[in-house]
Amino acid sequence: MSEEPVGGDLSRLRQLNASAVLRELRGDQPLTLTELSKRTGLSRASTEDVARDLLGRGWLAEVAPASGSVGRPARRYRFNAGAGRLLGVDIGGHKALALVTDLDGKVLNQTRITVDPEAGRRERLAAMDRCVAKALAGAGVEAGQIWSTGVATTGLVDGSGKVMLSDSLPEWSGVDLAAHVRRLVPGPVRVENDCKLAALAETWHGVARYAKDVVFLLAGLRTGAGLIIDGKLHRGFANWSGEIGALPAAGWLRAPEHLTSWLEGTAASPSAPVEFESVFIAARAGDQSAVQAIRDYVQDLAVGASALVLTLDPQLVVIGGGFSRSADVMVEPLRRELDRWCLRTPEIRVSAFADEGVALGAVRLALDEVEATIRTGLRP
Amino acid sequence: MSEEPVGGDLSRLRQLNASAVLRELRGDQPLTLTELSKRTGLSRASTEDVARDLLGRGWLAEVAPASGSVGRPARRYRFNAGAGRLLGVDIGGHKALALVTDLDGKVLNQTRITVDPEAGRRERLAAMDRCVAKALAGAGVEAGQIWSTGVATTGLVDGSGKVMLSDSLPEWSGVDLAAHVRRLVPGPVRVENDCKLAALAETWHGVARYAKDVVFLLAGLRTGAGLIIDGKLHRGFANWSGEIGALPAAGWLRAPEHLTSWLEGTAASPSAPVEFESVFIAARAGDQSAVQAIRDYVQDLAVGASALVLTLDPQLVVIGGGFSRSADVMVEPLRRELDRWCLRTPEIRVSAFADEGVALGAVRLALDEVEATIRTGLRP
Repeated sequence: MSEEPVGGDLSRLRQLNASAVLRELRGDQPLTLTELSKRTGLSRASTEDVARDLLGRGWLAEVAPASGSVGRPARRYRFNAGAGRLLGVDIGGHKALALVTDLDGKVLNQTRITVDPEAGRRERLAAMDRCVAKALAGAGVEAGQIWSTGVATTGLVDGSGKVMLSDSLPEWSGVDLAAHVRRLVPGPVRVENDCKLAALAETWHGVARYAKDVVFLLAGLRTGAGLIIDGKLHRGFANWSGEIGALPAAGWLRAPEHLTSWLEGTAASPSAPVEFESVFIAARAGDQSAVQAIRDYVQDLAVGASALVLTLDPQLVVIGGGFSRSADVMVEPLRRELDRWCLRTPEIRVSAFADEGVALGAVRLALDEVEATIRTGLRP
Repeated sequence: MSEEPVGGDLSRLRQLNASAVLRELRGDQPLTLTELSKRTGLSRASTEDVARDLLGRGWLAEVAPASGSVGRPARRYRFNAGAGRLLGVDIGGHKALALVTDLDGKVLNQTRITVDPEAGRRERLAAMDRCVAKALAGAGVEAGQIWSTGVATTGLVDGSGKVMLSDSLPEWSGVDLAAHVRRLVPGPVRVENDCKLAALAETWHGVARYAKDVVFLLAGLRTGAGLIIDGKLHRGFANWSGEIGALPAAGWLRAPEHLTSWLEGTAASPSAPVEFESVFIAARAGDQSAVQAIRDYVQDLAVGASALVLTLDPQLVVIGGGFSRSADVMVEPLRRELDRWCLRTPEIRVSAFADEGVALGAVRLALDEVEATIRTGLRP
């Protein structure tokens, strides 16, 4: 039997009631106390009680009564997304990207700084610091106004926010990102792997909003995966889920080589994603060697993707990452390959995010922390 | 925010309270109302209210007061596992196996009937019917006393209890098992894939009780997987999860061939699991060709297993199925292979069940249905 035990001490009950009320108000529609009480199943009295408490915390705002209502119009309430500010940071191989948002993830500022893939730890951290400072200034927000921060990084991350292992970044393994970012902003800081947070962003504000089980594929210079299972980000026992790419038989280690070798055929050096796009541009222009290179790439990508699909039988596969901008030449070949291997090929969607998806997932991670404060009764 | 909203109409609240109380009483220790109220966080009044209701339903039993207690001793209650009977059936390639149990899964009768792998649909269903009848008779239970039934079958099963696809059994695809079994016993009948239910059995009464994320490997004539994620059986969008074996790159299609070809080298025909054991017996006796055949088998098994481990990062891998009886010669080679491919090799345990694990999982499935009746307030 899996429900939360009901009851507990009063404050616990109030917290649960509060989160029930807030959940109902996260929609766009403001609601009256009567509507809230109906939707949450709470008594009118406890609904009023909770609403008063949340108004006091600034979580709710009262909106003008519906016009044309007969008699004394009922007060209506909405979630006050403006009550706080969140920071989401994506520190990757080629860039640092920071988002300052409200509590709904509405972006107040987005700042991007290019980082040399060869940059060492100190340089990369410094670039991240500059990026965060610019984003805060751009949003007109003091560090002290940030309620909660999420940080996305390439590599495997442990529960404490330390990078355990990063193949792609020199000197990055072992960096304590959480501790570093806490020097920049007060309040809780959580760190997570970038593929996992990109998946989270798709279920929050992206193309996977409606899906409970989702395989997110990061298709770019690196290939990675993030898994949403039963509506929640799946982390695994040591937070090392989604790493099927480490298995040679999955084809992901080899996949990008088809594109790099095509690029080596042309003079361009495959150092930055922008140059990778030339393969897709050439393919679009009908260059047969480019079309073949992409077909070979997708063939390898599809083996690991099929392993994920056959394992989890997800409702949806989302393609994100640098190459997703070139999805027009990738999706159909991928679908054909999945049809070849899978018992049931799920719907395939392409991420609608440019390169802010990962950072937006970091914002969602920050918001998780804030929402947890409601349930534990702590004020942000 | 993921909790159940608190409140709802009174009966709903009572049902939640009832399941909270029952959850506390599923342990071995009988509890007083005071202890129950403390553990569930319910008021004394609602605890008494719920206990009275559950006593009336026969779900609770009162036990003799603790001896030596001063003054008027407090009443103590326990979950009454004897209140009902459950039926679990495993219909597979070589056998039908039926379990009649109490509500804790304590086996009152276990009946096994051998079935010819070549048997057609009608023959196989008839064998299952005989097996169920013998099990009920052996337990001294009328069909009418069965509260709920779970059925395990090889092949893919849809939500309605129909077998969608079975590679291993002739004429089995399309059989409506749920409808067939409803002719034998009243009450709800649920049907599920055998690997999934074997995994469920391990988390219920097997070696995986403590683990939240588990990869169960069925190692036998067929290779299959069942996934426990966040403490729950993972089914997937179309209930087709765990089917990574369908991917040639996973190695599972090829794996058993190493053993069959060794058997073909010896005169024995690889039709029944018992003969497969001769490979393991020979390996134990030091036959180098047998040792090599098993090593090759494990090498292929490990590729798909590593894909599952890298994908989910489970706490535990459980080896079950026919070959698990020979785990002594399999586990160490498997561990070495997982160490080779995985970032983190989870603990590996061998199922403690003989061949009743799958049927026990079917019993657990039947119990899920019974426990759902508490939450929905229906009497069994």
